[in-house]
Amino acid sequence: MPTLRIDPLHIENLKAMVPTGHFSTGSSHLDLHAKDQSQHPPCRPDVVIWPMDREEVSRILQYANAHRIPVTGWGSGSSLEGNPIPVCSGIVLDFSQMNRVLALRAEDFQVDVQPGVVYQDLNQQLRHEGLFFPPDPGARATIGGIIANNASGTKTVRYGSAKDYVRRLTVVLANGEIVETGTRASKSSSGIDLIHLFVGSEGTLGLVVEATLRLAALPVEIAGAIATFADVETAAGAVFRIMRSGLEPAALELLDPACIAVINRERGLGLSVAPNVFVELHGTSRSHLDETMLVLEEVCRESGCSDFRPGLGRQQWGELWKARHELGEMIVRRHPGCGILVVDVAVPLTAYPQLIATARQELDSAGLDGYIISHAGNGNIHLNLVGPRDDPQAWETIESISNRMVLKALEVGGTATGEHGVGIGKKKYMAAEHGRGLQWMKQIKHLFDPNQILNPGKIFPD
Amino acid sequence: MPTLRIDPLHIENLKAMVPTGHFSTGSSHLDLHAKDQSQHPPCRPDVVIWPMDREEVSRILQYANAHRIPVTGWGSGSSLEGNPIPVCSGIVLDFSQMNRVLALRAEDFQVDVQPGVVYQDLNQQLRHEGLFFPPDPGARATIGGIIANNASGTKTVRYGSAKDYVRRLTVVLANGEIVETGTRASKSSSGIDLIHLFVGSEGTLGLVVEATLRLAALPVEIAGAIATFADVETAAGAVFRIMRSGLEPAALELLDPACIAVINRERGLGLSVAPNVFVELHGTSRSHLDETMLVLEEVCRESGCSDFRPGLGRQQWGELWKARHELGEMIVRRHPGCGILVVDVAVPLTAYPQLIATARQELDSAGLDGYIISHAGNGNIHLNLVGPRDDPQAWETIESISNRMVLKALEVGGTATGEHGVGIGKKKYMAAEHGRGLQWMKQIKHLFDPNQILNPGKIFPD
Repeated sequence: MPTLRIDPLHIENLKAMVPTGHFSTGSSHLDLHAKDQSQHPPCRPDVVIWPMDREEVSRILQYANAHRIPVTGWGSGSSLEGNPIPVCSGIVLDFSQMNRVLALRAEDFQVDVQPGVVYQDLNQQLRHEGLFFPPDPGARATIGGIIANNASGTKTVRYGSAKDYVRRLTVVLANGEIVETGTRASKSSSGIDLIHLFVGSEGTLGLVVEATLRLAALPVEIAGAIATFADVETAAGAVFRIMRSGLEPAALELLDPACIAVINRERGLGLSVAPNVFVELHGTSRSHLDETMLVLEEVCRESGCSDFRPGLGRQQWGELWKARHELGEMIVRRHPGCGILVVDVAVPLTAYPQLIATARQELDSAGLDGYIISHAGNGNIHLNLVGPRDDPQAWETIESISNRMVLKALEVGGTATGEHGVGIGKKKYMAAEHGRGLQWMKQIKHLFDPNQILNPGKIFPD
Repeated sequence: MPTLRIDPLHIENLKAMVPTGHFSTGSSHLDLHAKDQSQHPPCRPDVVIWPMDREEVSRILQYANAHRIPVTGWGSGSSLEGNPIPVCSGIVLDFSQMNRVLALRAEDFQVDVQPGVVYQDLNQQLRHEGLFFPPDPGARATIGGIIANNASGTKTVRYGSAKDYVRRLTVVLANGEIVETGTRASKSSSGIDLIHLFVGSEGTLGLVVEATLRLAALPVEIAGAIATFADVETAAGAVFRIMRSGLEPAALELLDPACIAVINRERGLGLSVAPNVFVELHGTSRSHLDETMLVLEEVCRESGCSDFRPGLGRQQWGELWKARHELGEMIVRRHPGCGILVVDVAVPLTAYPQLIATARQELDSAGLDGYIISHAGNGNIHLNLVGPRDDPQAWETIESISNRMVLKALEVGGTATGEHGVGIGKKKYMAAEHGRGLQWMKQIKHLFDPNQILNPGKIFPD
């Protein structure tokens, strides 16, 4: 691992800029901020700073910009493409201390938060007001990380991605300038949209120090169903038909038999070890959901489902959902000594069954352990590929499967990353996906961060 | 009006670049492209060109950029803030000939269109597939204009604005470069978001020559209701409560008694001449809508409505909606010899009753003819102020009311323009609304259009 590269004088100066205890060059802190949840090699920062307010962030960035010191923002380190790994070392700004909910304006469906707020904690608090923040990436992600990655998840099929929920942002730019942008009105046609420049830019254009989020009303009624299929291709076809039916599922997830086996083993839920589609419905009344459930069953049966379990209650459904969210960790536990690469691509709905079939064939022909987990309603596939850490040949195979999956997704008009972001892992596909647009992305980067101090080595291919 | 200012040689060269009939310096054509639907003074372009494809647009922009000739895109001229008035003359590119629906991929909920497609025509065509493009600005706007202004309208409260429906864009930049950006997947976290830079930038960063739009499923069932109130303040309070009730109205419009009187006179609909709130509900079944309607009635009655007419059928509701859409024109007809300034602001929902009260008081104390039309569910108010064209004192009053309304909206955290864009009329509020963000908007403008040829004189204050 790289050792300290910043001039020791800089270290001293930075240390003097923040209160005691909010600054560390200790090995354990550097190690904790050297890697995310991906397979990308760790890289230690030179120093970790836990800022307490926007002014502190501004002062640090001014200093770093003047001295060309890399600065990488840090949420909870739950990224899957190496997004926050400080590959050029320098400063990591860990926002975990800026974790206050500043103002909840329930009547406006809005909340002002600091970037270090963990979204599950936020939703816990919002529940009392009958509201929630829908983007649901699963891990204990922070709002700052969710915004930086334009994160989404199981509820995106109905409720949208992070980009759909940001009303205002306060951002500290590379030069230390503090910019507030956006409005508290629910719509606007005023000027050039800066919000969407920052959302999804992975901390390469500026660091979010405050956000006003739009909130959604919690559904009055929830109902869940599990549809079981003979093979993933048939299940994928059903997903496509459900989306075309106008039923507006709140979640529509596909898990392959390997996933179900893991869930059964860890949670004893006794699910059929077959491709299963989980469907969540939200509605204003029980009778309405009962009606919708009948239509859903009809669509699933017409699409060849072998079993349909409707009407799962809140508790049962909650257990299932918890298992779904923890599936990633279960898979890790299932394969000690192994690494897992999660291929994340999204394609238009018509291409979805085809991509699922491709994923299945790749797994079969490679003879690898693998799992298909999919935010199916969005055509978003996560192919989890498992390989022993000390088996370079297996990893070569894994990398080449991943590469073919991404190229296939791009070929059918999809994207190299549905929700995990570009980070390190998808840089190489940016030219293929964005063509000439990539040059303009680079120019925007240059405009906002001419000294390339913000999260260097990410998004943009070298 | 300004006369030709381009070197006659440029005129000849431009003429040679496009087929006969797609180029005009004729007075009537220049006049038709000198003004929109606003009160801003007209200004003739030097030449109007009707491009047929992206390559033609690219060649014209290359030429214009090399010779510093202003270029303003033109949809249908239905803007309300002077957005497409070519205030520096030069070239107007009228996209009405690029009006083809290129590919309808109903199964992906997507359509590829050229910018000159009129959205009503598009929706007419989409209806056969059970789909629609929800942003509904009312006038016969083109898709290009809708994207340029991030337009929205009556259905935005449930379905969102133009920015929520653009998946891919092909844009010709000031230097003639053709850039395609976006994906056909329903979500993505890939790279810097260029789409939202162009949406709402009013043709100042580039000209859209093709767009892939997301589509929504037409509702299975529609129901309408009219709630009548004693005064607009009480009506506004009801709007607020409806939004908090979780009923998810598909449209929630407030019209004041002056509007209702005009509609009754022109259409004989016999509505109560009082503040009325129109609510449209979308659902998957009749029984569900009947249920929702009962809750709606309860909320309205608890909020002090004096009359509630539920269950308006498709035909009756259709007539009402047609009248609502044509209200602007009816108001114009009602006041021959007069000009109308439409104040367009949007505020957070909690501030909505207060802003409605302010609008009412302004009208009362000025003793002017005026109309309050409001996309209430979005806190978006249009205050239509009427003044005789030849009465400068009336116009002074109108301008000062408009100014106070905008400042009030900004004061409560709202926006200077809910949906009409900045154009000429709202330039002076950009510094107050965006603070330091405005400097970054200007720098982005400079990056994409260093010679300031694209729609000069708009958005950015001088």
